[in-house]
Amino acid sequence: MKANYQNRLGTLQERLDEEKIDVTMITSPANVFYYTGFNSDPHERFMALLIDNRTQEFILFVPALDKALADTDSFVKNVVPISDEEDPFLKLKEKLGNNIKNFGLEMKSVSMFQHEQLSTVFPNTTYEDIQPLVNTQRLRKSQSEIVSAQKAVDIIETVLADGIKKVKPGMTELELTAEFEFLMKKHGAVGPSFSTIVLSGEKAALPHGIPGNRVFQKGDFLLIDMGVEIKEGYCSDITRTFILGEPTDKQKEIYDIVLQSNQAGINAVKAGNQLKSFDIEARNVIKENGYAAYFNNRVGHGLGIEVHEEPSIHENNEQIAEGGLLFTIEPGIYIPGYGGIRIEDEVYIDESGEAEVLTSYPKTLQII
Amino acid sequence: MKANYQNRLGTLQERLDEEKIDVTMITSPANVFYYTGFNSDPHERFMALLIDNRTQEFILFVPALDKALADTDSFVKNVVPISDEEDPFLKLKEKLGNNIKNFGLEMKSVSMFQHEQLSTVFPNTTYEDIQPLVNTQRLRKSQSEIVSAQKAVDIIETVLADGIKKVKPGMTELELTAEFEFLMKKHGAVGPSFSTIVLSGEKAALPHGIPGNRVFQKGDFLLIDMGVEIKEGYCSDITRTFILGEPTDKQKEIYDIVLQSNQAGINAVKAGNQLKSFDIEARNVIKENGYAAYFNNRVGHGLGIEVHEEPSIHENNEQIAEGGLLFTIEPGIYIPGYGGIRIEDEVYIDESGEAEVLTSYPKTLQII
Repeated sequence: MKANYQNRLGTLQERLDEEKIDVTMITSPANVFYYTGFNSDPHERFMALLIDNRTQEFILFVPALDKALADTDSFVKNVVPISDEEDPFLKLKEKLGNNIKNFGLEMKSVSMFQHEQLSTVFPNTTYEDIQPLVNTQRLRKSQSEIVSAQKAVDIIETVLADGIKKVKPGMTELELTAEFEFLMKKHGAVGPSFSTIVLSGEKAALPHGIPGNRVFQKGDFLLIDMGVEIKEGYCSDITRTFILGEPTDKQKEIYDIVLQSNQAGINAVKAGNQLKSFDIEARNVIKENGYAAYFNNRVGHGLGIEVHEEPSIHENNEQIAEGGLLFTIEPGIYIPGYGGIRIEDEVYIDESGEAEVLTSYPKTLQII
Repeated sequence: MKANYQNRLGTLQERLDEEKIDVTMITSPANVFYYTGFNSDPHERFMALLIDNRTQEFILFVPALDKALADTDSFVKNVVPISDEEDPFLKLKEKLGNNIKNFGLEMKSVSMFQHEQLSTVFPNTTYEDIQPLVNTQRLRKSQSEIVSAQKAVDIIETVLADGIKKVKPGMTELELTAEFEFLMKKHGAVGPSFSTIVLSGEKAALPHGIPGNRVFQKGDFLLIDMGVEIKEGYCSDITRTFILGEPTDKQKEIYDIVLQSNQAGINAVKAGNQLKSFDIEARNVIKENGYAAYFNNRVGHGLGIEVHEEPSIHENNEQIAEGGLLFTIEPGIYIPGYGGIRIEDEVYIDESGEAEVLTSYPKTLQII
């Protein structure tokens, strides 16, 4: 199944016309990929898709060294290379002329510096944020996107199942991380979709901790949070927490609460409900059991091309859920100095408005 | 050897005082790390080091879920957590009050969106770019930084030496990439400092190509460009190009030109010279041999905490080289549809103004 770039660009153009935007500059690499199929991180160099609604023209500006790849991969065939010695903003002006009234851009991706440069070459232009238009479009995943997202989930589950068998006494967090990341490539992923998290013992209390040389010990929590990016450009994200050896009663208690919370969050997912209800339902389980102080982040985040994208599933988000949304449900309990548990699944709201859980890796307490 | 955060912050404060900046917000994760020792990517969440030159106070704002890690790692001990439901800009106002005349920020890191939010909470404030001050400070690497950079180089060279032995008929680019990345972790790196590049055959002509399922064939170019990030927070970056089996005369010819170019670039490195001279000297070798059209990017880039940072070594950069600079010299010849060769070393200008090459992996044509 292939993405329909023609349609995506057409839909965006219609919305830009409604908003009376003359020229639009898309600079976030994820959005450039979404509209062109060219998946590239230009680092500090300049890359942008320009949509000229005055002439219905598309131009893809890329760093000179990416020209060949862009020619092959991009749906937009007018690819303009920019060498390191050129000023991209002068080049924009050269191609677009001076007569731009409303210039659309992604205000969260365009830096103050770039804004200054633009204002210099287009001094009489008004800048408008078109990020909401793009986000709305990207929010509802197409069937081809869900197929890719499911593939990314399937790979990370295989990686987790294979990798967890390698855990043995004396192993460190970093060694297990290396095993997982090797398996990701082996199973066909481009690589991790974010820095793989393997945390053991009391370090499991750090929701964004970094794997280190800590050696696994009997009785440890083993928290694994990882995902892959696949060549189709989509990401996955899963967390499972294991116990090394016989769990204590307290470990079992906390695990059960997090599992119930994860399930309560998923059960709340349905088109028509407010997104915050997913967070609140999951959080209530943790609250009722007296651990509210140990769950201090939102219950989930959207993902797709990026591992964090809209929607944000937090207790104040009153947005109404609808078909096409893909996001995580990942409650956790993190007790500083003791350890932590998180269980994270990916959930999709399908056309009928029901929740589909993409993640199928077992969630009952696994003792290894 | 440990970084001296006290000194770094002191130096910055002096410069901010000279510029009459009241309050400074550092948001780029690399700069937050440089000044505090807290190394974290907040993704779309808000993280900032605030330097209040009115009160000599430092505050580190972090996402709530990073609080414990920041408490441990940050030199700045006033760590303020921000939960997902809070507005970071209101929190800034609460802590800093309203009486800010000049607000310093990194214009390349602060988005138009963040600028709008700031302008809302601090409406009577002037915003100034303090990026040049920070860049100047980061440009000159301290001894502790070079020790870390050398360690990162040593690890990637070991990885390359070990990994290249694994190359065998039938192997794909992705499989070799997986081997390298496994070895990075095994040898103690946090992970790759950028997406590992393993390109074979005609794909070696893509300076930023992505490893795929192409199977290595006799006569192939094998271009490997990779680096590691180590737990001390520093990056390395090396490229070597191998030939699988007996090289053709043309392959040998191109290899020799690139090698001479690399050496000419390095020979030009000396404090007091303009940075552009390093590019020009390397480029001239390629030009004189008739391949100018096949080398269309700058010869090198600075690196350190980030794999791409200042200075940029391109043919228009008239900046004068000085002791403390660390950067790559990486000329290449890329012939579309045929293949490519790049040879990349890291070069440091030491206190005496002389070039020190950190990279020691052999550069003569290696046939495997």
